[in-house]
Amino acid sequence: MKKTLIALAALGAMAGVAHAQSTVTLYGVADAYVGQVTTKTQVGAAAETRLSQNVVNGSGLSSSRWGLRGAEDLGGGLSAVFTLEGAFDISTGAVATIAPQGNTLFGRQAFVGLKGGFGTVSLGRHTTAYDTLRGITNNIYNSPTFATTASVWGVGVQDYQVRASNSVAYTSPDFAGISGAVVYGLGENKTATTDAENSASLHIKYANGPLLVGYAHQREKQVAGGNFFGTSTGVPAPVTTVTDTRKYNSLGASYNFGVANLTGGYNTAKSNTRKDKEYQLGVSVPFGAAALAAGYSRAKSEGAAGLAALKGTGFTLLGTYNLSKRTTAYAAVINTKRESGTTAAFTTTKVLTSAVGIRHTF
Amino acid sequence: MKKTLIALAALGAMAGVAHAQSTVTLYGVADAYVGQVTTKTQVGAAAETRLSQNVVNGSGLSSSRWGLRGAEDLGGGLSAVFTLEGAFDISTGAVATIAPQGNTLFGRQAFVGLKGGFGTVSLGRHTTAYDTLRGITNNIYNSPTFATTASVWGVGVQDYQVRASNSVAYTSPDFAGISGAVVYGLGENKTATTDAENSASLHIKYANGPLLVGYAHQREKQVAGGNFFGTSTGVPAPVTTVTDTRKYNSLGASYNFGVANLTGGYNTAKSNTRKDKEYQLGVSVPFGAAALAAGYSRAKSEGAAGLAALKGTGFTLLGTYNLSKRTTAYAAVINTKRESGTTAAFTTTKVLTSAVGIRHTF
Amino acid sequence: MKKTLIALAALGAMAGVAHAQSTVTLYGVADAYVGQVTTKTQVGAAAETRLSQNVVNGSGLSSSRWGLRGAEDLGGGLSAVFTLEGAFDISTGAVATIAPQGNTLFGRQAFVGLKGGFGTVSLGRHTTAYDTLRGITNNIYNSPTFATTASVWGVGVQDYQVRASNSVAYTSPDFAGISGAVVYGLGENKTATTDAENSASLHIKYANGPLLVGYAHQREKQVAGGNFFGTSTGVPAPVTTVTDTRKYNSLGASYNFGVANLTGGYNTAKSNTRKDKEYQLGVSVPFGAAALAAGYSRAKSEGAAGLAALKGTGFTLLGTYNLSKRTTAYAAVINTKRESGTTAAFTTTKVLTSAVGIRHTF
Repeated sequence: MKKTLIALAALGAMAGVAHAQSTVTLYGVADAYVGQVTTKTQVGAAAETRLSQNVVNGSGLSSSRWGLRGAEDLGGGLSAVFTLEGAFDISTGAVATIAPQGNTLFGRQAFVGLKGGFGTVSLGRHTTAYDTLRGITNNIYNSPTFATTASVWGVGVQDYQVRASNSVAYTSPDFAGISGAVVYGLGENKTATTDAENSASLHIKYANGPLLVGYAHQREKQVAGGNFFGTSTGVPAPVTTVTDTRKYNSLGASYNFGVANLTGGYNTAKSNTRKDKEYQLGVSVPFGAAALAAGYSRAKSEGAAGLAALKGTGFTLLGTYNLSKRTTAYAAVINTKRESGTTAAFTTTKVLTSAVGIRHTF
Repeated sequence: MKKTLIALAALGAMAGVAHAQSTVTLYGVADAYVGQVTTKTQVGAAAETRLSQNVVNGSGLSSSRWGLRGAEDLGGGLSAVFTLEGAFDISTGAVATIAPQGNTLFGRQAFVGLKGGFGTVSLGRHTTAYDTLRGITNNIYNSPTFATTASVWGVGVQDYQVRASNSVAYTSPDFAGISGAVVYGLGENKTATTDAENSASLHIKYANGPLLVGYAHQREKQVAGGNFFGTSTGVPAPVTTVTDTRKYNSLGASYNFGVANLTGGYNTAKSNTRKDKEYQLGVSVPFGAAALAAGYSRAKSEGAAGLAALKGTGFTLLGTYNLSKRTTAYAAVINTKRESGTTAAFTTTKVLTSAVGIRHTF
Repeated sequence: MKKTLIALAALGAMAGVAHAQSTVTLYGVADAYVGQVTTKTQVGAAAETRLSQNVVNGSGLSSSRWGLRGAEDLGGGLSAVFTLEGAFDISTGAVATIAPQGNTLFGRQAFVGLKGGFGTVSLGRHTTAYDTLRGITNNIYNSPTFATTASVWGVGVQDYQVRASNSVAYTSPDFAGISGAVVYGLGENKTATTDAENSASLHIKYANGPLLVGYAHQREKQVAGGNFFGTSTGVPAPVTTVTDTRKYNSLGASYNFGVANLTGGYNTAKSNTRKDKEYQLGVSVPFGAAALAAGYSRAKSEGAAGLAALKGTGFTLLGTYNLSKRTTAYAAVINTKRESGTTAAFTTTKVLTSAVGIRHTF
């Protein structure tokens, strides 16, 4: 569809048709893998139990998605832009679960706005500004399944919410390599007795040639009884159980040496009972159409008096082979270890996933 | 997409390609606004409570929607036509709630049929013929949020159901300005002891130059225990609680003076316990790419013995600015007052909404 | 859309634009009918009850669906392929119920894979290899509503599941008319105490000129408490109640004599308590743009000691008229009789459906 429209524009130019403009582009990613997931669980000092499962799953290298988007030139450097993008589980055909307030038709992104010399302003459901920086500085190409951060972070304090409904987003233009973004989401759940929840995020980054470095902050005002934020189980739109303002800070960078691309990041996450410190490192090395990538994450959570300290670690090795610009075959192994619970007898979960898959973008 | 296909047709004509026909058009509306909703509630003679909430919502000027539609020329003046159209809440990405039997993928319209010299006949889920007339004679461009009727009508008798599933629709051709439509929806819920529910609607209208005038009727046969109709809460596909045949009558008109466009309508709605009388007036005045519109509604419900008489009033001021044919910025204020309840100690709800938004069609 | 892209390719070739390739095709079927369904029910020797209902339903001649699909030429005879296809009920606009694990956005098919000289391998949710053969050798064009098998088979042993989530599919190339397919779906629901469920299917067929003949097998490993398979009510993703491995075998054939096309099939289905034997016959006779088709099915189930023997029969007459290659009008009558229950006082259900409808593909 996209190429079609480009071709059309070319034809239009040739044939002297002035208004051969597209008004909507249909696009997406179809990504699936076959693999094995081995989970070892140990509660306190009890014996370890082991379960190994064969799986066909979606969203290995990238999240499977489909969407509609468009941009209309309004003249004077101004454009109207919109995006409607949903996630699906290719292994069942179902809408994929996306916290918070997810599991919806266009749950990944849904917005309409204006773009000009001032930047872009839009209204709807957006990826937070925090997540945007996290994504571009994450290891393993920010894979939803194989990036080590996906499985390891949030060991103590629930990881930040990737999206915000009922939000206003502003993305700045680029000033000599410096750019930034702000997203503010309204809980719209104020009552006679409690405030509305909200999600506020921002990032600022510097990108110049091989270097990208940035800082991001996210703050989630959660009110007991509110349903604007998800819980750590990832189930969409549940009720928040405690009143808390969670704060997330992230420093991230990447440097492309040509022979290798390095990424790294350091985060902190604070709730009213815990503080987590997390870092991740990644490297990818291209070999013609192929590439090898490795990632490592470590997370550590300290709790208030009486709460167990928790740790998480993860390591990934991923090989990719580009069959074309739009189609990539991949193989990966990810090994994670994660502690959970509140007392000394916490649970240790080790997961080893090996997978072979294919990603196609359209 | 639409423009693309038009361009294609033009190119096809030039290049001598005879069969450059599209088989499906992807289209939609993305509409969102940021605003404030202040609600004042008073139960009987008790003190008024007040709640003010900031919101980012969808469907301000028009309902956000996406759809697939097509028309195939079958020769001899006959075409096959189809439409599959769904509503979404751009502020969450979710499928929007549409009563009755709504909240579904293609909940706005889903039909296939034939169009010819005789008119159009189609099968599926349709907007009722009553709603079609109401839409084109409603104030504030029939906005789902700012038309005064949306918030004020249905004060006593639940307002008519906009759509009918399991329906046959017929739209006549135009006879010297006169045209009409009929939609008949089958409840398909007949049992050994109760009849099936149904929704029957028709309209007839005369449109000539600046004048449009029409009459519409809708009749909803509701059976206790049936689930073909919604309740006044708008939740989709609930169970009807009483057996009743509700009757709706509407007279509507619009006249375009050039410097201003006037609209107006008078309705009655009858249930087995209540009779409502409703009217609305609207005016819109264009100023180049901008326009200012005002709307007013009033509704009055008289109940059977022992039931409180209820009133509703609403007033809207809306400014629009067309950034292009497809993109419109808008600002609006709507102020409504509505009574609800059965006894003298009924509830009075006043809502003041102010909003700034953007609508983009694709 | 499809024709558009073909036209584009033609234009591209003319205008010397080399890369006028589409990356996604939007396609579907919109099918609806108006009809009457008369159901007569008799429990044991009790008096027969009769209920006649008027309906507007979808999916008469073919299942209403919409989807996205694409194929990318990767060079060397290799292509990347994907399909995302969902079912909808055109009479309500809702996503249609598809067992097992259905009722989902792309519940019909969702996969991505590679196609080459070796055949096609894909990952995701697939139609089973068993269903593929059943479909091409079924009577009444494998209509979801009017094929006699749809209403009659599965009288004792629940009929096979048409689709498998979490599956790997392989379709072989054609070897001198011989080809085959295998689909293996993983329940992914292994626990510490029970195995994972799975669905395994294969078919092999020979197609040469007017003749097609094939054999198919499907095996469903169902575990009590598992949710990978549907129940006989067709409700998606329920919990399986008994541990059982169901086995389905099918022999099917079709022969096109030109003046008439004959189809036929013989199946067996086995559960741990029942064995069903089923056969079907069909004929279709073209008359220019029109065609007349007739179908007949018979099913017989023998149960373990104490379980009633059950029978089912069905007969259909269907006339079609092609208004174009993409649009077909149809009229049908289907008469079925089906026994259900476990004891001698089983229920006999007779259903007579008459319908007039239209199918449009896009």
